[in-house]
Amino acid sequence: MNYVLNNLPERSAKPRNKGLTMAMDKGMSLREVEDILETSGDYIDIVKLGWATSYVFPQLQEKINLYKEAGINVYLGGTLFEAFVIRNQFEDYLRVLDKFGLEYAEVSDGSMDMAHDVKCEYINRLSKQVTVLSEVGSKDEAKIIPPYKWIELMRNELDAGAWKVIGEAREGGNVGLFRSSGEVRSGLVEEILTQIPYENIIWEAPQKAQQVWFIKLIGTNVNLGNIAPREVIPLETIRLGLRGDTFHDFLNEGWK
Amino acid sequence: MNYVLNNLPERSAKPRNKGLTMAMDKGMSLREVEDILETSGDYIDIVKLGWATSYVFPQLQEKINLYKEAGINVYLGGTLFEAFVIRNQFEDYLRVLDKFGLEYAEVSDGSMDMAHDVKCEYINRLSKQVTVLSEVGSKDEAKIIPPYKWIELMRNELDAGAWKVIGEAREGGNVGLFRSSGEVRSGLVEEILTQIPYENIIWEAPQKAQQVWFIKLIGTNVNLGNIAPREVIPLETIRLGLRGDTFHDFLNEGWK
Amino acid sequence: MNYVLNNLPERSAKPRNKGLTMAMDKGMSLREVEDILETSGDYIDIVKLGWATSYVFPQLQEKINLYKEAGINVYLGGTLFEAFVIRNQFEDYLRVLDKFGLEYAEVSDGSMDMAHDVKCEYINRLSKQVTVLSEVGSKDEAKIIPPYKWIELMRNELDAGAWKVIGEAREGGNVGLFRSSGEVRSGLVEEILTQIPYENIIWEAPQKAQQVWFIKLIGTNVNLGNIAPREVIPLETIRLGLRGDTFHDFLNEGWK
Repeated sequence: MNYVLNNLPERSAKPRNKGLTMAMDKGMSLREVEDILETSGDYIDIVKLGWATSYVFPQLQEKINLYKEAGINVYLGGTLFEAFVIRNQFEDYLRVLDKFGLEYAEVSDGSMDMAHDVKCEYINRLSKQVTVLSEVGSKDEAKIIPPYKWIELMRNELDAGAWKVIGEAREGGNVGLFRSSGEVRSGLVEEILTQIPYENIIWEAPQKAQQVWFIKLIGTNVNLGNIAPREVIPLETIRLGLRGDTFHDFLNEGWK
Repeated sequence: MNYVLNNLPERSAKPRNKGLTMAMDKGMSLREVEDILETSGDYIDIVKLGWATSYVFPQLQEKINLYKEAGINVYLGGTLFEAFVIRNQFEDYLRVLDKFGLEYAEVSDGSMDMAHDVKCEYINRLSKQVTVLSEVGSKDEAKIIPPYKWIELMRNELDAGAWKVIGEAREGGNVGLFRSSGEVRSGLVEEILTQIPYENIIWEAPQKAQQVWFIKLIGTNVNLGNIAPREVIPLETIRLGLRGDTFHDFLNEGWK
Repeated sequence: MNYVLNNLPERSAKPRNKGLTMAMDKGMSLREVEDILETSGDYIDIVKLGWATSYVFPQLQEKINLYKEAGINVYLGGTLFEAFVIRNQFEDYLRVLDKFGLEYAEVSDGSMDMAHDVKCEYINRLSKQVTVLSEVGSKDEAKIIPPYKWIELMRNELDAGAWKVIGEAREGGNVGLFRSSGEVRSGLVEEILTQIPYENIIWEAPQKAQQVWFIKLIGTNVNLGNIAPREVIPLETIRLGLRGDTFHDFLNEGWK
């Protein structure tokens, strides 16, 4: 760090198992990727190439290599997995992972209906080849999942071989974990945490208010995802209690 | 493309007459322009240098050249045309187009009152020198234009020599075609489309919800404008049914 | 400028004492800084490295040097000053300013309680070493400061040695000068201006609507702060009456 400030919370260092930041790349240029690696490489653990942007992005292999060489794990968004599955092209999807040297993959069912045991089979099968993140939640605002069901889904997906489960928000941060106002469904999150260790969950929290909320609840080393790359440095200051939003939290109470 | 997905809608290729994406550059650096060309050059047909940003941007000629060399048509925002007209400097405006080697121009009356036959004369006069886009609609929230009037204005401007007419939204996407909530005035758009072929209209749709709405109504190859450059790749996935928002549209119904 | 438009308001030139634009850098890469200097260097007078982002940003000295070499004054956000003070590390803070060759600093009390005479002592002490900006207002939505109090605070801080006082908004632009809706507290601003010369105040105005509001009230050469770097060129057009929002203001009335 550039100078010494006393009494800061203990932030985990890379390679981390908790306090993960997953950034969302939705089409950055290679030069922008280099810039983000230079400024924020120490603070980003995983990058998701959002939904199916990898289909249209022209320098895909170069981008994947850039991230991997910087020690950042990279995977293709879950919507792409679904786009292959709904076309009965799952085997092609495996070949794509292989061709581009991907070591991580996401399994989700946010855009299509999938029986849960089928989803768990996909998780299991993929987990033989790559490290799997599986996403729980719905992109459909009408589909409310009750807390006990979230817990059951998460537990089954972890048992099936998922490394982490992801608590779904859409990119804009307004469904799944969040009410349409963007507000976090607090009771839901607290109930989940009584059953699933927080290290095993990555909470999608693209908006600052959501990041603050999770950091206040779970602490500096909560796993957060779908962070805009240029918001990673601001997020790091929130984790450290160095932005107004969390300025007092650790001074008075200490961190978890 | 980086891999094969079956059963995608047929997307037009450059040079296109429909399915145009017009991006809005409001002051990007030359290096950012290079980056956008590298990542999204195949998906951008036209770039508007927003309103009068060209007045203060320091490397204007270099920027125009960069776009033109990449096969992208570039023009100065309509507000600049109006800024010249309201100062009785229209002849100076023609010289600016000439000096910078511009082959496209926009005629609008969003910020000033202009009799419609006068506007059509400007379109006609400019169309002898450059390809003209003309913008219909108002930046003034209080001025509601009824559907039959939109149709009449569009038809007259096309007859006067406009290559395409633009359905106006402000940069933020909240007047003209849109209610102040950002919601599209659906009845208006549907009525216009009964009279004016969709290929002749570029709909300004800076916000994702608007892009989705037009793509669902008109199809993958609708012309869309005022797209933030970094949103061009996301837009391309929406056009292809590869983002949650349009994931099911073509699978069940096929595209227009 | 790239071409001549008649009848524009008189914009001050660098080095300016009024019409200042203060941009907020919350973690830009060095290459992005170079880009902003190239496109907007003439329009930016001061850069704030937002709150404590300087703690986690890896190339801090290089960034500070880049700005200084371009003739732009740079300082660390007030929240960082407070983070040192609340830890009883004020002397360390002075050493940080010295180590990085900083010639500007901000004093604020937005995140912590501080007696006003204590704040003024900090201003006075710092003003012996650097040029001081002091921030008036609160980051706490519940703390409403009445107009006469704003005036008294501003006057005392200027008397204590502040070069300019800053009218506080949070980065998102929704407290202090602004109601939670983002609307400006007009009566407050007008009352302040009866007592404090507008040259002495920098108004934080991160949102376009706020920028427009201040420019309409005070004129082209109002001091504005917390501007996103990529919004500096758009802001410059608003100052000049070359965007729809202020298109008519100077044509009819002339500018202040």
